[in-house]
Amino acid sequence: MPAVTIYSQKAYTLEDVIPGGSNYFNLRPKNIPGLQWWGDVCVRADVENISKVDIKNGKETVLVTLDEVNDALQNGEKPYKTEFKFKPLRTLGSASMPWGDRNVVVFLNKAETGNGSEDYMCWYDFGQKKIVNMFRIQSEGKQPANLDFCKENGYVAYTVGRHLFVANEGDFSRQINRSCMGCTEDPEKDVVYGQAVHRNEFGIYKGTFWSPKGTCLAFYRMDQSMVTDYPQVNTSTRIATLEPDKYPMAGMTSHKVTVGIYNVKTGRTIYLQAGDPTDRYFTNISWSPDEKHIYVIELNRDQNHAQLVSYNAATGEKENVLYEEEHPKYVEPQHPIVFLPWDETKFIYWSQRDGFHHLYLMDTKVKTYPELERGKDEETLFREHLKTVPLTQGDWLVQGILGFNEERKEIIISSTELSPLQSNVFALNVKNGKRTLIGSGEGIHSAQVSAAGKYIIDSYTSAKVGRSVNILPTDGKKGINLLTATDPMTEQYNLPEITVGTIKAADGTTDLYYRLIKPVNFDPNKKYPAIIYVYGGPHAQMIHDTRFYDARGWDLYMAQKGYVMLTVDSRGSDNRGIRFENATFRHLGVEEMKDQVKGAELLKSLPYVDGNRIGVHGWSFGGFMTTNLMLTYPDIFKVGVAGGPVIDWKYYEVMYGERYMDTPETNPEGYKGSDLKQKAGNLKGRLEIIIGGTDPTCVPQHTYTFLRACINAGTHPDLFIYPEDGHNMVGRDRVHLHEHITRYFEDHLK
Amino acid sequence: MPAVTIYSQKAYTLEDVIPGGSNYFNLRPKNIPGLQWWGDVCVRADVENISKVDIKNGKETVLVTLDEVNDALQNGEKPYKTEFKFKPLRTLGSASMPWGDRNVVVFLNKAETGNGSEDYMCWYDFGQKKIVNMFRIQSEGKQPANLDFCKENGYVAYTVGRHLFVANEGDFSRQINRSCMGCTEDPEKDVVYGQAVHRNEFGIYKGTFWSPKGTCLAFYRMDQSMVTDYPQVNTSTRIATLEPDKYPMAGMTSHKVTVGIYNVKTGRTIYLQAGDPTDRYFTNISWSPDEKHIYVIELNRDQNHAQLVSYNAATGEKENVLYEEEHPKYVEPQHPIVFLPWDETKFIYWSQRDGFHHLYLMDTKVKTYPELERGKDEETLFREHLKTVPLTQGDWLVQGILGFNEERKEIIISSTELSPLQSNVFALNVKNGKRTLIGSGEGIHSAQVSAAGKYIIDSYTSAKVGRSVNILPTDGKKGINLLTATDPMTEQYNLPEITVGTIKAADGTTDLYYRLIKPVNFDPNKKYPAIIYVYGGPHAQMIHDTRFYDARGWDLYMAQKGYVMLTVDSRGSDNRGIRFENATFRHLGVEEMKDQVKGAELLKSLPYVDGNRIGVHGWSFGGFMTTNLMLTYPDIFKVGVAGGPVIDWKYYEVMYGERYMDTPETNPEGYKGSDLKQKAGNLKGRLEIIIGGTDPTCVPQHTYTFLRACINAGTHPDLFIYPEDGHNMVGRDRVHLHEHITRYFEDHLK
Repeated sequence: MPAVTIYSQKAYTLEDVIPGGSNYFNLRPKNIPGLQWWGDVCVRADVENISKVDIKNGKETVLVTLDEVNDALQNGEKPYKTEFKFKPLRTLGSASMPWGDRNVVVFLNKAETGNGSEDYMCWYDFGQKKIVNMFRIQSEGKQPANLDFCKENGYVAYTVGRHLFVANEGDFSRQINRSCMGCTEDPEKDVVYGQAVHRNEFGIYKGTFWSPKGTCLAFYRMDQSMVTDYPQVNTSTRIATLEPDKYPMAGMTSHKVTVGIYNVKTGRTIYLQAGDPTDRYFTNISWSPDEKHIYVIELNRDQNHAQLVSYNAATGEKENVLYEEEHPKYVEPQHPIVFLPWDETKFIYWSQRDGFHHLYLMDTKVKTYPELERGKDEETLFREHLKTVPLTQGDWLVQGILGFNEERKEIIISSTELSPLQSNVFALNVKNGKRTLIGSGEGIHSAQVSAAGKYIIDSYTSAKVGRSVNILPTDGKKGINLLTATDPMTEQYNLPEITVGTIKAADGTTDLYYRLIKPVNFDPNKKYPAIIYVYGGPHAQMIHDTRFYDARGWDLYMAQKGYVMLTVDSRGSDNRGIRFENATFRHLGVEEMKDQVKGAELLKSLPYVDGNRIGVHGWSFGGFMTTNLMLTYPDIFKVGVAGGPVIDWKYYEVMYGERYMDTPETNPEGYKGSDLKQKAGNLKGRLEIIIGGTDPTCVPQHTYTFLRACINAGTHPDLFIYPEDGHNMVGRDRVHLHEHITRYFEDHLK
Repeated sequence: MPAVTIYSQKAYTLEDVIPGGSNYFNLRPKNIPGLQWWGDVCVRADVENISKVDIKNGKETVLVTLDEVNDALQNGEKPYKTEFKFKPLRTLGSASMPWGDRNVVVFLNKAETGNGSEDYMCWYDFGQKKIVNMFRIQSEGKQPANLDFCKENGYVAYTVGRHLFVANEGDFSRQINRSCMGCTEDPEKDVVYGQAVHRNEFGIYKGTFWSPKGTCLAFYRMDQSMVTDYPQVNTSTRIATLEPDKYPMAGMTSHKVTVGIYNVKTGRTIYLQAGDPTDRYFTNISWSPDEKHIYVIELNRDQNHAQLVSYNAATGEKENVLYEEEHPKYVEPQHPIVFLPWDETKFIYWSQRDGFHHLYLMDTKVKTYPELERGKDEETLFREHLKTVPLTQGDWLVQGILGFNEERKEIIISSTELSPLQSNVFALNVKNGKRTLIGSGEGIHSAQVSAAGKYIIDSYTSAKVGRSVNILPTDGKKGINLLTATDPMTEQYNLPEITVGTIKAADGTTDLYYRLIKPVNFDPNKKYPAIIYVYGGPHAQMIHDTRFYDARGWDLYMAQKGYVMLTVDSRGSDNRGIRFENATFRHLGVEEMKDQVKGAELLKSLPYVDGNRIGVHGWSFGGFMTTNLMLTYPDIFKVGVAGGPVIDWKYYEVMYGERYMDTPETNPEGYKGSDLKQKAGNLKGRLEIIIGGTDPTCVPQHTYTFLRACINAGTHPDLFIYPEDGHNMVGRDRVHLHEHITRYFEDHLK
């Protein structure tokens, strides 16, 4: 991989390079916000206008202006009379145009009503130049959240607190769950409706699922009453107040999830008859195109046995187990099934069964798994099921299904096929498996696919390209470039040399990517201190073919201060397949650390690195790694700053924790071996731990019990806390944090 | 004041000089534990024996042996049969001999009963050589506390949790408060019986008060149900648990206290009819010798108006206000009235009305205050009341009433008459006011007075004397010396030079005492860094004529590391009278800091001090001072370590806080001026704050809100927390703490 060497003039500050810094956004490469598809028409929504963008030449034509919308809001005819006045809409930048066949813009706007300031969803028809629909997001003065708009029926589902609502037309707004808001005695006070469950693991990021024709809303219901409260304390009130958080810790009682289906016509709700939900995960909900079936990928608490189950959407009755998957370590469904638009009997199933996330075409009509001959082994059954239709194969993985080109029978996907450091867009032909690259073969792409699937809006950055925005046909031919932006950082500052390469992992065979940053104004005759920035956990990758190879602003800042900065994506990290990841199973930290030590050895081999001044910094899993490295390799790592660390996996939550570690009861050696309190006496160098005072992810108990262990062992870590902050510091706190981290290394490693 | 210069050989460690250190107790000057009076006979209780000590020559004669007590416990005749066996008693060191006319030793012992291990109080008669009484301290497996033994009736009052009990003879044990233990629904769950109230202010240190003849037990009842919980969190459990603590913050709703009287014969309880207890303090409970009256010094919430009130002890009816005292700042009753043993109509009242704590003789027979002519002003009334009987006067204060010599009509007191740095014992003649010094005129004395008041057991240390234990007649004549102990520290180690002197306060007139410690192996040609160890708050004084002039082990340790150590008892501190103390009223910190700056100026004037390297360290009020000095005088103080600091007095408790600061509502400027968050942006030097994770005194909110203010202001304090520790670190944690503090100064001030 070639080096990227860039030179310029003055020095940058943390205000320039840290998100939250006063000059941070000025130094990002330009972008084109608000680009989106209106059916097959490309439009751009900015503050003042929504414009049509010609996909052949990029020429813009104004469709709607903010002024006309505000005129209609204030003075125009409306679907019904109201007592209140709307506030002027401030921007069209967050408006959308859901219907390719209607001249309608949808946006949220505030109105001062008798209930205070309330959100209204408004539909503006720019043909008729009037508001054609408007309705209140009723929330009794609280903040509505998780808005989920269904363009088929025009409803919005949303949550207020732990309650679920739908709203549509006029003043219609209905609470779906029956438990009342503001009751004094609420038997369901620990039950949450319509939100993401299972702590957002298993690809879950939302809790409402509209049926394809808008007849029904499936939603999660999570009963947390049996889960222990973690006592978080808010010290910003007059007297500190308890803000308990339901936190199921590894091995302990977890919440119970069920799936409801609300019918918007009848107003009735049924629940899937899935049986006792204890110790089960209900993931990746999807609908059949005809709305008759709903599919859930169900997982046992051990997370080693997944079932794709179909239910009757009208009755909630369980119909079939369409497919099962088991693994001696874990299976991890992360994507709902997706039906082909042109064949309602065929759907796409994601599996890592062959070692990488790939797509398999399945048929709802084939005999389902339980019906198949029991004499055959599971693998054979799976192959029979899928033998003609492995849609993708190889030592790379599919990352997303972005859309479909029905005419050409293509799925538009993103994948790592070209490099594990990249994400590129392809048209995958379902009939012959052929993949056509759309756009540049470098960098990290994001794409929006047009309704018919013939074009994408492509936006990417790479180590060489600040930002490139394009409209491209999905047949692989050349499209048009709307923007090629340079990087203001490279123009204004003298930047360090950043190189990416590979080293062998501690297993002697696996290639690991590393990113090395030399100090600004590098002098090969000097001996520099070095810092490894580490994450090391699953589901994340620190090195990409993107701006500065994904180096963070702080890494650049420290390079300017005269540090060599290294990052290694060790085994366990993302986008390298399941075996690369699950090498760490039941003993988190061990293999990852061995690989990081390979990184330290690389540093020591460099003539310009002072091998006696190697530091390490990381957050979350990286905080676990940092602390662990300081305690396990005290002769290599002299200074560490560990943020929001896991100290003992038994204090981490059930879903993520047990996937990789099983339970404290079934894996006592693994838990003990990764319990950093056991190693508290090993601390030799300087280690600072930094946490958010009410971190809901790695709860403060991790850090406090570690401090206690160190105190008892007579060792001396340092500590800092950002009160009222969570798992990460954001905004101005993030700038302060990096001043603090920098100071610690300057105090002790410089 | 003369310098104390001591020299020796090797270096001492924190293990030698910090309480909790492994060698700390070996290096304390010897003492004679267990010395006490058995009526007028001096006895010494140690592990194996209780011996009689001849007050003429110190010769010891064994009275009781541990072996004979254990023989009686295991094999001897007992008052009644039991199913259980006593565990062997391990020591006689904590036994007592309450009755001068009975050969009885009283001790607690454990027995393994059907209810687990339980405490029994046993009476051993060493004339009869048998157990003559024994009874169970019933506690349902919980820990009994606050044991209060009445030698008149043989009862023990004690508390279990928040409940109050009495026990006496055999298996008699009675819960006095009616609220049940272990009820599921307890309407009194926030009510505490029989314990110290008002957060131990106003001299309150216990909650049970036996009547002089043992007929009744007066006790405190404190209803905290209206007080806000401070949410303390214990992170040492499997999942962190909430341990809420009732903490009334300045200006907020406080608890309500009432006083009950339990009659041991009738078993009935009445309550004093004191009216609505809201915003009132009930302090300094005492009984009339005939048990007919009970006296309470009552104070309004403003703490500027005290009343000595008498109640009918049989009915609880209010009888009289015997005396009132007001002050524009505050009055602070700290001592109950005490009756003269030879005249039941006369009692001693303590007052600071003349500027210092002095004793006044009052008469229950004189017309009481409300009955006196209303035309006279209060001062005149007070003088009329007391005109013939100011027992003591002068610019010094009485510290304790230790006993009486009835024959000579003398009160045995301790006072600061000889020096504010000393505490000496005097016989005060009630008839003529003459005071006779008992024992040495130097040092800090503690004394136990014999029954007839003719002898004291005197124990003292001074800057020159490691420990001296004596039996002295109270007529001022020479007695005998039982022990004169040298200081192992001076024998084994090369110690620093410690001097005490005075400087002028910032007001230009008041003398302040300081203690200056030069580095060990002092070289006048060097420039040393210096640290001010500060407390500065009321009720405490850091400099005494005692071992090392009261310098703490850490001060000596830092002197050995090459620091000059200074402490100044600034205005506001103890034993200098009320005007010295209340100079700080309504603006805590301001005058105290000006005086500490005088200390810093003294340091800068010393040729061997590097005036650019002055640090400061203190705990609690001293943590407040440290933080405040760092923020208010950032050009003087470069490094500070603040322990358990007050940051904002509105987070401190009602009793102490409002006495000095009034409420946030009535003194907004004062609260704002002493709110260190307001100065967070001033931080220039290095400031570390250290707290106990569940500090119940200066709650963690102080420190967290300060960190938040600094983060918002872009300044960078440091932090350390001792999880599960309270307001102070004790035991091994205290050694770790001082390693930590030392490291901080070594990192940044050396």
